[in-house]
Amino acid sequence: MAAVAAETRWQLLLVLSAAGLGVTLAPQPPNILLLVMDDMGWGDLGVYGEPSRETPNLDQMAAEGMLFPNFYTANPLCSPSYTPQEVVGGIPDSEHLLPELLRTAGYASKIVGKWHLGHRPQFHPLKHGFDEWFGSPNCHFGPYDNKARPNIPVYRDWEMVGRYYEEFPINLRTGEANLTQIYVQEALDFIKRQQAARRPFFLYWAVDATHAPVYASRPFLGSSQRGRYGDAVREIDAGIGRVLRLLRDLGVAENTFVFFTSDNGAALISAPKQGGSNGPFLCGKQTTFEGGMREPAIAWWPGRIPAGQVSHQLGSIMDLFTTSLSVAGLEPPSDRAIDGLDLLPAMLQGRLMDRPIFYYRGNTLMAVTLGQYKAHFWTWTNSWEEFRQGVDFCPGQNISGVTTHTQEEHTKLPLIFHLGRDPGERYPLSVASTEYLDALHRITSVVRQHQETLVPGQPQLNVCNQAVMNWAPPGCEKLGKCLEPPESVPEKCSWPH
Amino acid sequence: MAAVAAETRWQLLLVLSAAGLGVTLAPQPPNILLLVMDDMGWGDLGVYGEPSRETPNLDQMAAEGMLFPNFYTANPLCSPSYTPQEVVGGIPDSEHLLPELLRTAGYASKIVGKWHLGHRPQFHPLKHGFDEWFGSPNCHFGPYDNKARPNIPVYRDWEMVGRYYEEFPINLRTGEANLTQIYVQEALDFIKRQQAARRPFFLYWAVDATHAPVYASRPFLGSSQRGRYGDAVREIDAGIGRVLRLLRDLGVAENTFVFFTSDNGAALISAPKQGGSNGPFLCGKQTTFEGGMREPAIAWWPGRIPAGQVSHQLGSIMDLFTTSLSVAGLEPPSDRAIDGLDLLPAMLQGRLMDRPIFYYRGNTLMAVTLGQYKAHFWTWTNSWEEFRQGVDFCPGQNISGVTTHTQEEHTKLPLIFHLGRDPGERYPLSVASTEYLDALHRITSVVRQHQETLVPGQPQLNVCNQAVMNWAPPGCEKLGKCLEPPESVPEKCSWPH
Repeated sequence: MAAVAAETRWQLLLVLSAAGLGVTLAPQPPNILLLVMDDMGWGDLGVYGEPSRETPNLDQMAAEGMLFPNFYTANPLCSPSYTPQEVVGGIPDSEHLLPELLRTAGYASKIVGKWHLGHRPQFHPLKHGFDEWFGSPNCHFGPYDNKARPNIPVYRDWEMVGRYYEEFPINLRTGEANLTQIYVQEALDFIKRQQAARRPFFLYWAVDATHAPVYASRPFLGSSQRGRYGDAVREIDAGIGRVLRLLRDLGVAENTFVFFTSDNGAALISAPKQGGSNGPFLCGKQTTFEGGMREPAIAWWPGRIPAGQVSHQLGSIMDLFTTSLSVAGLEPPSDRAIDGLDLLPAMLQGRLMDRPIFYYRGNTLMAVTLGQYKAHFWTWTNSWEEFRQGVDFCPGQNISGVTTHTQEEHTKLPLIFHLGRDPGERYPLSVASTEYLDALHRITSVVRQHQETLVPGQPQLNVCNQAVMNWAPPGCEKLGKCLEPPESVPEKCSWPH
Repeated sequence: MAAVAAETRWQLLLVLSAAGLGVTLAPQPPNILLLVMDDMGWGDLGVYGEPSRETPNLDQMAAEGMLFPNFYTANPLCSPSYTPQEVVGGIPDSEHLLPELLRTAGYASKIVGKWHLGHRPQFHPLKHGFDEWFGSPNCHFGPYDNKARPNIPVYRDWEMVGRYYEEFPINLRTGEANLTQIYVQEALDFIKRQQAARRPFFLYWAVDATHAPVYASRPFLGSSQRGRYGDAVREIDAGIGRVLRLLRDLGVAENTFVFFTSDNGAALISAPKQGGSNGPFLCGKQTTFEGGMREPAIAWWPGRIPAGQVSHQLGSIMDLFTTSLSVAGLEPPSDRAIDGLDLLPAMLQGRLMDRPIFYYRGNTLMAVTLGQYKAHFWTWTNSWEEFRQGVDFCPGQNISGVTTHTQEEHTKLPLIFHLGRDPGERYPLSVASTEYLDALHRITSVVRQHQETLVPGQPQLNVCNQAVMNWAPPGCEKLGKCLEPPESVPEKCSWPH
C-alpha cells in the first residue's frame, strides 16, 4: 500500500514536470543518505562551538541546510546497546527496517561501516533489506588473540574479506588506520553506480573512527589541534565534504536528502585523548544527562530545506525512519506503533511539533523532556565501585544529588530542569515553585500516556555465549581465516552500567 | 609623530585613489567601533554554540567577518577591576587613551555606556579624549537609599542627567529597563552625525544589560528561551544588528572597523537566571580559568577582513588599542612598553603571531598560555568560607587540585593543560611526560622575560572613601539631585576575592 501511494505521488510529479518543462526525464524519488557518527559529541563540530573549529565541511553543510540543536538519540550507548560479540541476539525478523521498506519504492540500499544489530547469520544486514554492505558487525575493539576471542571481521556484502588488526590494520600506538578512507570510497562508488543506473539510493554511512580506539589515516594524523580524536573528526569531516561535493557534481544534490547525527554523546571516559566534547552539556555517553543523548544534527537538501536555518524542534534519531519514508513518499507500517515523527514539516515549512523525548537506560525510563522542561525520574552515572576505580562518566562535573553514583529514585518528585536557562542541568527547579508544578503536571500526563501505550520489545541482549563470537563468519574458508569456536555455554550477559 | 605618519599614509591613499578613479572625494581614515559587553560569556552566542541560538545578528556579523575563538580579556573582572563607587582612584592622566590619540588624526570619539575607570572629576572620560559620553561611571547596582549610598548617575557629556532607579528606572522585579534602547539610539545618532559632518569616528559602546541585575525593555522581556539573561542578550544582539545595518545604509561599512568582545567571562554566581554561559570552559568571571577570561570576539570590516573566517591567533583585549591605532594609520606611543599587538596582519592576511597570554588576578600572575599550552602557577576559585556560604565561581564543576578553595602555589611545577585536546582544563599533563617538560621549558623562558621587563602600574584601587561616592556629580544642582557626602574617611579597600 505504501508503495502504491508513493507511485501515485511520483506519477503526479512526472505530470507536473512534463506540463511545465515540455520534455523531461522520468523523476526519481529522492536519494537518502544518513551519516551516523560513533561517539561523536554535540560539542565536536565548529558550528556547535568546538573552539578549534576543525569541521569546515560539516559547518558548511549546516550553513547550506538546517541545524537541530535539540536532537536526541534513543539510547546513550552505541546502537540499541553496546553489543559485544558474545551477545546471542540481534535484530528480529519481525522488525521492518528502512531499506526493506525503501526497496518497495525501488531503492538500492547500502550500509557502510558498523552494523551492530547482531553478527550471527540471521541478523546479517543483507537479510534485512540492504543490498550491499562494507563494514563490520561489531565495534573495532582489539587486537584479540583469536584464541579466547577472534578479531572482528570486515564484510563485503555476504562474506568477510578480512579482520580488523589483520587485513585491516589499526595501529593502536600511532592511531593509524585507513578505514575512514575506505568507507569514504565505498560511499562515493556506491553513489556513482546508483546514479549511473538511475536508481534511487539509500546509503547508511556509519563510520566509527571517533569510537575508541580512535584512528585516522596518515595524512590526517597530527593534523588537528585536538590530538588523535580531532584527527579522526577532521578525516570524517573531509570525507563528508567529498560526498556532498560528489552529489553536487553529479547534479543530484537537489534530489538527495542528507542527515548527519551521532549515536550517543561523546565518551568522556576516553577523554581527553580519545574522547570528544559534549559542549556545555552534563556528562556523556552512558548517561541520560544531556551530554549522553543530545546529538549534533544537520539536515541538508539543497533547494528543498532552506539554507542557514536553525530548528528548535525536539528531534529523535527514531524520527529518521519516518522522515526517510516520507522523503521517499512512503508511509510507515500501519500494523504497529511507530515512535518516530515525520520531521519534514519542521524541515520544509519550519513547523514546530510538540512532542516529548524519552531517556531510557535499559528498560528504565530515566527522564523525559517536554518543551524546555526535563524531568529526571532516576539519576545515576555509575557505581561507587567503578567510580573509585577511576571510571568517570562526568569528569570534572559534580552536581550534588544529580550526578549520583547510586541509582536514585525521584519518581514522586522528579528533578526538573529548564533546559533553555540551564542546558547544563545544574539548577533543579524548586519543587515549591509554580513553574515546577506546572511542568510536572504536563509531564506526568505525557508519561502516563507513554507508559499506557508502550509495547515493550523482546530483550535481545540478555543471553551471551562465547561460542557465537565471530569465529567463522561466511567467507572465512576462502581466506583460510576460520577459527574453532569453544563449547557452547549460554549464560546471562553481564551489563555493569 | 604618529599623526604625521598617519597623514602621510592617507595622502598616499589619496594619490592612489585619484590616479585610479579620476575625480575622488578625500578619503577618511576608517571609523572604529568597539562593542564591549559586560559579563557576557564565550558560550552566549549562537556562533559559539549556545543551544538556543538567539544571536542572529552577531552570528551574521561573524559570517561576514572573522571569528576569534582564542581571544582573552586582561582581567577576569569588569574593567581593570570591579570598582565600587567608594574607590578613590581611577585612570591616571599619564595613560594615553585611544580617543586621545585618535583625536590627533581628526576622530570624533564617544563612549556609550559604562566607563568604570573612576568616577571622580579628574577621571571623567571627556578629560581623557572622548568628545561625548552617554552612560554611567559605575555599574548599575542599586537601588540605594541615597543616604548610605547614592544611586549611580547617568551622564550626558560633562553633566549628569539623572540617576539609575530614579530618572532611569530599572525594575528589579520584572527586569524591565529601557537603557539598551537608549544606548542603541545614542550609537545610531552619533554615527549619523559624524557621517553628516564627514568626520571619522571612534565609538566605544560598553553596554551592561547582561551584568546582574540583568534587564531588557518590554518588547524583549520573555522573548528568549534563556530567561531574563537571554532577553538582555537578544536586545543587545538586535541593537548591534541595527548599528551594522546603519553602517551599510550610510555606505560606510567598508570604511568602518568593528570589533565585538566582552570584558570577562559569564558570571556563574548569577546563573541560571542572571548569568550567561562559558560554553565548554571551566568556571567563570572572577577566575583565571578559561571560563573567566576567554571571550567571544568578532572582527568585521566588509571588503577588508575576509568573510566567514576563523582566526586561531591568540588575541587580547589589550590588542584593541594597538590594532585600532593601526586601523587609523597611527603608531602607539613610543615612550613606554605597549602590551597589545597589532592584530591587522591576522585579520587582513590571516597571519598567526606567536605570543603569550598572561592571566592576572590582582598583581599575581596566575597562569600563562603559549600556543596550545596553559600553565597555572596558582590555582584559586574563592575561599572555603565564601564557598560554604554558597558563593560558587564554578557551579557544577569540581576538578581536584584545580578548582581549589585555597590559593595553591604551583610555581615550581605548574599545572599544564593542552587547551586543544582539553579546553575544559580537566586533565593536567603528567609532569613526567616529555610534552610537559617541553611546554614548561618554553613557558618558563617567556615568563622570565615578561617578569624582567614588566613595569608595574601604580595601584589605583587600594584606597576607598565613602565621601567620594557619586553624591554630587557635576550637573546635580540643575536637577536638584545633589546629596550631602559623609565625612571623608580614607581607608584601605577590601577585596574579598
